[in-house]
Amino acid sequence: MALIKRLSLIGIGLIGSSIARAAREWNIAEEIVVQSRRAETVDAARRLGLGDRYTTRPAEAVEGADLVIVAVPVGASEAVAKEIGPALKDGAIVSDVGSVKAAVIRQMQPYLPKNVHFVPAHPVAGTEHSGPEAGFAELFQDRWAILTPPEGTDPKAVETMKAFWTKLGSDVEIMEAEHHDLVLAIVSHLPHLIAYNIVGTAAHLEEVTESEVMKFAAGGFRDFTRIAASDPTMWRDVFLNNKAAVLEMLGRFSEDLTALQRFIRFGDGDALFELFTRTRAIRRGIIEAGQETAAPDFGRPHGAEKR
Amino acid sequence: MALIKRLSLIGIGLIGSSIARAAREWNIAEEIVVQSRRAETVDAARRLGLGDRYTTRPAEAVEGADLVIVAVPVGASEAVAKEIGPALKDGAIVSDVGSVKAAVIRQMQPYLPKNVHFVPAHPVAGTEHSGPEAGFAELFQDRWAILTPPEGTDPKAVETMKAFWTKLGSDVEIMEAEHHDLVLAIVSHLPHLIAYNIVGTAAHLEEVTESEVMKFAAGGFRDFTRIAASDPTMWRDVFLNNKAAVLEMLGRFSEDLTALQRFIRFGDGDALFELFTRTRAIRRGIIEAGQETAAPDFGRPHGAEKR
Repeated sequence: MALIKRLSLIGIGLIGSSIARAAREWNIAEEIVVQSRRAETVDAARRLGLGDRYTTRPAEAVEGADLVIVAVPVGASEAVAKEIGPALKDGAIVSDVGSVKAAVIRQMQPYLPKNVHFVPAHPVAGTEHSGPEAGFAELFQDRWAILTPPEGTDPKAVETMKAFWTKLGSDVEIMEAEHHDLVLAIVSHLPHLIAYNIVGTAAHLEEVTESEVMKFAAGGFRDFTRIAASDPTMWRDVFLNNKAAVLEMLGRFSEDLTALQRFIRFGDGDALFELFTRTRAIRRGIIEAGQETAAPDFGRPHGAEKR
Repeated sequence: MALIKRLSLIGIGLIGSSIARAAREWNIAEEIVVQSRRAETVDAARRLGLGDRYTTRPAEAVEGADLVIVAVPVGASEAVAKEIGPALKDGAIVSDVGSVKAAVIRQMQPYLPKNVHFVPAHPVAGTEHSGPEAGFAELFQDRWAILTPPEGTDPKAVETMKAFWTKLGSDVEIMEAEHHDLVLAIVSHLPHLIAYNIVGTAAHLEEVTESEVMKFAAGGFRDFTRIAASDPTMWRDVFLNNKAAVLEMLGRFSEDLTALQRFIRFGDGDALFELFTRTRAIRRGIIEAGQETAAPDFGRPHGAEKR
């Protein structure tokens, strides 16, 4: 017997469609209802066979659902909650996949009826691609899913969500929403901001052409372009909805960067060497934690096929 | 007949050992002489079978060599040039692989005899690993090698170096040293600096533990740890020897980052969305230029082997 009888996915992009595929592949839900506001996206989901039923209307999608997962850009959470609130069945679990948690709780909770369990979640996984075609069942394997249930949430609902993400292949951590937002500001939001920024800087230089930037990108720059190719709507919403934590981490980053700039200006080779040595240990730790490949250069192919 | 009769490699780290392997595999040199100052490194090179002869002494290594490639951290270039200068044979070509070109020319040229051709080079390729074990023959395939011959360099020597890098699988570009240093400051040096910096910042927060940073690194942070795991000596020397260009690019980056910070602070979603959309095109350009894999997430494995 599947863990979930009727699973309703509100939004069917990279994350929603990966959940749909994984739920199907490992028999986690008996029935999957897929919703997207855009008819073309619903058509794509249907072509891909991601669900059992399809609709463009959120309220219709959640009817009779035991678990509703809202997988839309975080800025759209309030509108979705407003629409689905009255249509949710008694005892249903509502969850999400947003990269920001406090703001999502503020947006959604007021519209969810008392007889519904709200267990906000964030799978720390993704790729730079987006849309229903980009999803795959293995996306969440060996990644962390963070749950941030508000105080007073029914422990049974939290257990169900824990079991759900475990079946998708993830490890599960429970955290306060505010702490989640700080942690993610440094491990995810700031890296994306920095990446978007350097790619923007490189595209607007007078002395170096865009074609030179592209040709010689293997010098390190190309690594940054991956996360700077992530979905613009999703990331705009992240920065607008986790402002305080992002600005705090950005302040720390800029402070450290100014110190580094002085080391370079005054030729302090020892200080540079010391920092560059410490940072190696962090990567080793991430590899040991199973969160990164040990293969050189992320395992990128090295032209062997060309010869 | 091989392009080079006797190839002498001064330094046998990631780059030197990759040249040795490629030269052997594609029959580019008849004889390969391997040098490293450290006896353990020479022993490792011998175990790996990277050369035909081995020595710890640079002057001995270049005797009778037709092509000498200096593959040491750029801060060590002057000392090497001083030692090898008197031992070079008439008509020999001296080249290097340094990530900075003007400073290397300033360091080496005064010690090279008139009857020797100096063709500085920079293969824009590498991984985060270092040492003779880390090299592989395919490292330079489909990457760019930049030559920066000083004015008056013998065109035949430049042609030989062009042929050499072409045989290693690279495309070759000829550039002025000063321009090279500006281009590399944005496509390589600044990305490394930013990466080292954010990894340093993340390791020293009070509110977020190092263990949390490692666990949730798949949010984007782990991408930065790859280049922040690069060789500390090499990178210290890059920043000390390309100070002006790095500080200029860093100034541009910081200016843009301040603007981005203001967009976030004042909630300017349209400005964020506009930047985040433009940056996607740059990655597409890099993939089309054959300098990056189109596979999602750099083609990293997604736990399929675990189930």
